[in-house]
Amino acid sequence: MGIQFDILDTEGLARRGLLKTSRGVIHTPAFMPVGTAATVKGLLPSQVENIGTDIILGNTYHLMLRPGVEIIDQFGGLNNFMNWEGPILTDSGGFQIMSLAGLRQIDNDGVTFKSHIDGSLHRLTPEKAIEIQTILGSDISMVLDECVSFPADYKTAADAVKRSTIWAKRCKTAYYESPGRGLFGIIQGSIYKDLRMESLEMLNQFNFDGIAIGGLAVGEGQENMLDILKGISCSLPDLKPHYLMGVGTPDDIVNAVSLGVDMFDCVLPTRSGRTGRLYTLHGHINIKNSIHSKSEMPIDLDCDCKICNSFSRSYIHHLFRCKEMLGPIVCSIHNLYFYQNLMKKIRISLEKNNFKEFHQIWKKTYKK
Amino acid sequence: MGIQFDILDTEGLARRGLLKTSRGVIHTPAFMPVGTAATVKGLLPSQVENIGTDIILGNTYHLMLRPGVEIIDQFGGLNNFMNWEGPILTDSGGFQIMSLAGLRQIDNDGVTFKSHIDGSLHRLTPEKAIEIQTILGSDISMVLDECVSFPADYKTAADAVKRSTIWAKRCKTAYYESPGRGLFGIIQGSIYKDLRMESLEMLNQFNFDGIAIGGLAVGEGQENMLDILKGISCSLPDLKPHYLMGVGTPDDIVNAVSLGVDMFDCVLPTRSGRTGRLYTLHGHINIKNSIHSKSEMPIDLDCDCKICNSFSRSYIHHLFRCKEMLGPIVCSIHNLYFYQNLMKKIRISLEKNNFKEFHQIWKKTYKK
Repeated sequence: MGIQFDILDTEGLARRGLLKTSRGVIHTPAFMPVGTAATVKGLLPSQVENIGTDIILGNTYHLMLRPGVEIIDQFGGLNNFMNWEGPILTDSGGFQIMSLAGLRQIDNDGVTFKSHIDGSLHRLTPEKAIEIQTILGSDISMVLDECVSFPADYKTAADAVKRSTIWAKRCKTAYYESPGRGLFGIIQGSIYKDLRMESLEMLNQFNFDGIAIGGLAVGEGQENMLDILKGISCSLPDLKPHYLMGVGTPDDIVNAVSLGVDMFDCVLPTRSGRTGRLYTLHGHINIKNSIHSKSEMPIDLDCDCKICNSFSRSYIHHLFRCKEMLGPIVCSIHNLYFYQNLMKKIRISLEKNNFKEFHQIWKKTYKK
Repeated sequence: MGIQFDILDTEGLARRGLLKTSRGVIHTPAFMPVGTAATVKGLLPSQVENIGTDIILGNTYHLMLRPGVEIIDQFGGLNNFMNWEGPILTDSGGFQIMSLAGLRQIDNDGVTFKSHIDGSLHRLTPEKAIEIQTILGSDISMVLDECVSFPADYKTAADAVKRSTIWAKRCKTAYYESPGRGLFGIIQGSIYKDLRMESLEMLNQFNFDGIAIGGLAVGEGQENMLDILKGISCSLPDLKPHYLMGVGTPDDIVNAVSLGVDMFDCVLPTRSGRTGRLYTLHGHINIKNSIHSKSEMPIDLDCDCKICNSFSRSYIHHLFRCKEMLGPIVCSIHNLYFYQNLMKKIRISLEKNNFKEFHQIWKKTYKK
C-alpha cells in the first residue's frame, strides 16, 4: 500500500531516489511546478512535461473555490480536468487559508474562511481536506496543518504544533489508503527547534508515506530555514521522502538537498518568468533592463532549453517592452527548464557520487 | 525575377495556387496570421508553423517604432530576430499611419507622424517604406499607399487614389528586385467602383508581383466589401496573386475566395481568442459564457486541433474565469487552427473541383 520510495544513492545527507506512484515515477530530488488553479501559469501541460517535469502541485484552496470540487469530480479528478497525465501532489489548503488574515477563524475542529474572490464562507476540517484531495485524485495528499506566520511567539507556535498533530492524526484516519498513492505529514514549529523535533516525533508515530517540512519560506530567511533543516535532518525518517514545502530559490534548493530534502515546490520560476527575471547558472538577469536591448546572446549560453536555442535577449527584451504575452511565456519556459535542469544536475552528481563537489562549485559560482 | 505564382486549379473566379518565395512555398488561398510586433500574439513560432501556417505578416509601422529598424538590421532581418523561418509579408505602414488621426500630416512626398507610444516624430516616404521593408528582409513587400477611412467623400477617395498611384510607381522604382521576393501594389478607391477600377488599371501598368485590395475592412460592412470585390474581380490580373488586406471573418474569407482572392490577413483569430471568442464550423461561441462551465465537450467536436484534443469547454471557461494566461493562449491556438483548416478545406475543395458545393453548404450552415 502507499507509495514505494527507493533510495538509489546517498552522499552525506543528500539522496537520489525514485518515488513510484500509480501515475508515474518521480525522480528525486524533484522540483514540482505549481499549478495553483489547475494550470502551470502560461504553459501547456505538454510543455511542462517536455521541460522534464515528473509531478506538479495543485492548490486545494484555489481549486475548491474555482472551479469547485463538484466540477473536478464530474471530470473524474484534476488530471482529467487539466489534461495532465503525470502524478499530482495537492496541498491541504492550510497554508493559503492561514495567510487569509482577517478572513479566517480557526478552532480545534477546523477552520472557517471567506473566499478572497467573492467573500463566500467555506469550512475546512482535516476530514474535509482529505475528502477534497481524494476527489481531486491526488497521487500525494497532504494533511491539514496550522501554519503560523513569521515571526510567531513560542506559545503560538507550540499551540499550532499541538493542533497540527491532532489534525494530522485525524487526516490519517480519514485517508483511504490505496496502492501508488500516499499521504504526507507536515512538520510545523516555526523557528523553534524543540517544537520542530516534537512535531516530527509525533508525526513519526502515524507512519505517513512521506514527511514534509512546512511553515518555512514564510519570511524567516535562508539562514533560519537552513538552521531548522540542520536541526531536524538527522531525525527525518530515512526511508521516506522529505518534502520542503514552498521552497525556493535555486540556492535554497541546492543547500536543502545537501540536508536531505527530496522534494520541492515553488512559484518562483513561473512568477519570476512573468516579470522577466531569468535564472542562469551564474545568477539571475532582468531581461527588462535596457542593457539587453541589442544583445544577440541567448538568456544563458550554457542553457539547452528551447528558448535559449531560439531567441536572443534582444528579442525577449523587445517582447516585454511591447507587453507581448510571449515574453512571460518564454521566460516561464526558460526558468522552469532551469529548475528542472538543476534538479537533473543534482541527481547526476549524486549518481556519480560527486554532489559535494557540485555543491562547492555552486557556492563559489552562483550569485544569489 | 520576383515571385513565381502557379495556378493549379480554378473554379469560377476561385483559384488554388502555389506562391513560391525564396523562404518557402505558400499554398493559396492562404491566411497570414498577423505578427504585429514580431510575434503572433501568445504563440511560439513553432506553434504558428505546426498549425499549418505558410506565411505570416509583420507591421512596418510597429516594427520601426519598436524595436526599431536598426535592431532588426543588426539581426539580419525580421526572420532571424523573431525566429520565424518561413516567408514574411510586411505592410508598408500606410494603413496604421492613416489611422493615427490627429497624429499625422500627409503631403505629396510622404507622411509625417507621431509615435502612438512616445510621441516622437517619424517620416515615411515611398522610398523609405521600401528601404525599411528591405531591411526587414520581407519576402513580400507592400507599396506605401494612402488608405482613406470610411466613409470618405468622392473627392477625398479620388485624391488618395491619385497619390497612391504616384507612390506605387515610386515604390516600384525604389524596389530592388531579387529572385523569390516580390512587391505588391495596392488598389484604393473606397467604395467607389470607378475609382477602384481606375486604381487597378494604373497599377497594372507597373507590373507588380501581386495585387492587393486595400482600404476595405475599415467599417464599410461585408456587403459593400463584396460589392467592390465583384466590381473589380474580373479585371484583376489573372496570373498574379490577389491579396485582400485585413480581411476578415471566416465568412468574409469564403466569399472572397469565390471572387478570386488568394491571400488574406487578419488579427481576428488571435484577438478573438484572447477574449474567449471561438470559431467553429457552425459559428462562434463565447467560452466565458457560464453555459460552458460544466461542459465536457471540446470547443468543437469536429475540430482536430491540439486544444480540442486536450481540453474541455469547462476547463477553458475556468481558465478565463481565473484570468489565467493559458486561456487566451489555447483560444488563440484553436482559432488560428480553425482559420488554417478552413483554408485547407477551401484548397481541397478547389482541387476536387467542388468549391461551389462547399460554398453553398457553408452559406446554409455557418452562422455569422
